[in-house]
Amino acid sequence: MPEQFKFAAIGLDHRHIFGMAKGMIAAGCRFASFWTEGEPQPLAGFQRRFPDVPRVDDVRRILEDTSIPLVLIAVPPHERADLAIEAMRHGKDIMLDKPGCITLEELERIRRVVAKTGRIWSVDFSERFEVPAVTKAAEIVRAGRIGEVLQTIGLGPHRLNAHLRPDWFFDERRYGGILGDIGTHQIDQFLYFTGKETARIAHSAIGNFNNPDRPGFQDFGELNLHAGRAQAYIRLDWYTPDALPNWGDGRLFILGTEGYVELRKYVDINGRPGENHLFLVNGQDNEYVDCREADLPYFVNLARDVRDRTETACAQAHTFSVTELAIKAQQQAERRGYLKET
Amino acid sequence: MPEQFKFAAIGLDHRHIFGMAKGMIAAGCRFASFWTEGEPQPLAGFQRRFPDVPRVDDVRRILEDTSIPLVLIAVPPHERADLAIEAMRHGKDIMLDKPGCITLEELERIRRVVAKTGRIWSVDFSERFEVPAVTKAAEIVRAGRIGEVLQTIGLGPHRLNAHLRPDWFFDERRYGGILGDIGTHQIDQFLYFTGKETARIAHSAIGNFNNPDRPGFQDFGELNLHAGRAQAYIRLDWYTPDALPNWGDGRLFILGTEGYVELRKYVDINGRPGENHLFLVNGQDNEYVDCREADLPYFVNLARDVRDRTETACAQAHTFSVTELAIKAQQQAERRGYLKET
Repeated sequence: MPEQFKFAAIGLDHRHIFGMAKGMIAAGCRFASFWTEGEPQPLAGFQRRFPDVPRVDDVRRILEDTSIPLVLIAVPPHERADLAIEAMRHGKDIMLDKPGCITLEELERIRRVVAKTGRIWSVDFSERFEVPAVTKAAEIVRAGRIGEVLQTIGLGPHRLNAHLRPDWFFDERRYGGILGDIGTHQIDQFLYFTGKETARIAHSAIGNFNNPDRPGFQDFGELNLHAGRAQAYIRLDWYTPDALPNWGDGRLFILGTEGYVELRKYVDINGRPGENHLFLVNGQDNEYVDCREADLPYFVNLARDVRDRTETACAQAHTFSVTELAIKAQQQAERRGYLKET
Repeated sequence: MPEQFKFAAIGLDHRHIFGMAKGMIAAGCRFASFWTEGEPQPLAGFQRRFPDVPRVDDVRRILEDTSIPLVLIAVPPHERADLAIEAMRHGKDIMLDKPGCITLEELERIRRVVAKTGRIWSVDFSERFEVPAVTKAAEIVRAGRIGEVLQTIGLGPHRLNAHLRPDWFFDERRYGGILGDIGTHQIDQFLYFTGKETARIAHSAIGNFNNPDRPGFQDFGELNLHAGRAQAYIRLDWYTPDALPNWGDGRLFILGTEGYVELRKYVDINGRPGENHLFLVNGQDNEYVDCREADLPYFVNLARDVRDRTETACAQAHTFSVTELAIKAQQQAERRGYLKET
């Protein structure tokens, strides 16, 4: 395989495809082509960003092109499992927008195909892999500067932008529900920072409190995880108010035995400009770290994994475990607000 | 009763007595005397702050002094119920350090004595009543600036200062456990900001992760509450690191349908100096509010309630409800870390 191998995109149904493609280009790969059905909302923005990437009229032209070892998938969530399986059977490695799949039955089929084909089934947990402040936080934690990680609190507010969203976005059976979908980011970060392989779901709840006209949608979700000496609280919502200068005031609090880290990932409300703010307090230090220049190693590592058949970008078992927990948390969740009627 | 009535203090076993007394003096009352057993650690600091207040050698001199309508109680938590009951039977109104009591049996006896005597049994939830930023947040919420309150997240880290703590501080049967004790502050704020009378405990857990030599102590606690369309997540801990310039990085996030408020009560880490920082984001506004000058109405209102037999400082039913939830959350909590051995 050439050092600068080719990749293609299948499905432009979520804007996350922009970051996925940008990351692989930055890692030295060549964006060969894309296929998508119809004219999804992100298509225009995609073509502005990647004007030279040709669209193919049949997805088979990507699946059957043996010069393309990696495909990025951002079709609607309920279509991801079957497509990824088909692509892996064609010998492709896969990077998916989250969630990678939305039912346990899909996940089981994916596990079997990965085991049989040896392909990579990777999910781009963009709230870690595309956030330099998380890279920096991992360095700090690995260096022992906050001791043993006992807890993470992840707050994941998102701007709804309902008028820009497709139908599937509001249908639990197609997007996987709020914990099954954007919950994956936060579960990923808990397992990553605590080094746990999996966790027990201590409590989960979902609600629709602000969108009575969209009964299949969930605008609120919360989840408590527990694994040995570590615990997590996770809150997701779709309530980002218009006056916030970014899509969401995403926070991550990492509490250790010797100190704590707070990330203000996308905005420091009424504070410092820009993104990627890290605060560290421990026995000796009380520091602010501007993390804009930190690396995003996921993409370079994934490119190496595709070439060298290594497993450095993200452990396959971790991606499965995150996905399984998200689906189970969603299935078990107490239903609140307007969801109680359904 | 004179406009400037007298009050006395019983028990100087917790430094909270300083704020309790200071508040009543600021409300125009006269600090007549105090009684405490032995030489508790806060005594020296108390006598520096209140050098003119005489110590009496027998608690009966306070209980039987009919010119004193209000007593402040800060004996160790397990002694509070019996003492408050005795004082109420002597015709006194009561303000207690939190927790007001630590068992359901105590609470039931207190309810009966309050019903019979008509006395006031008030707990100084100091993380609300002594924090000007909370007064300001309540104004903002009441004005509808964040819509309907759907959730509060309260983070209550505390500095341990183990060498300054008495034995009872580390004994669950005497201090009531982490949720029963400092959990009351956070439960109070959830019920207050959502306007709920009580809540269901959706999940609670306590842990000792960092103090293996103190098996009766809990350095971590968490609690999820649910009431109709409102929910809370609460985390308490005793991990404040030494480099933090105050005793704890207390936060309160109030999430509404139309916006949110964040309080950084005691410190804005690596940000603005001082205490009482409020951040508001909604559809139109993205504001920072310095709340140092906001009022603390609890004390003035309590003085009026004592004089006029009104119920303006804090509803009696609310104080009972907070205390009951804290005790039940503590009793039901999953036990983690070194607590699992006990």
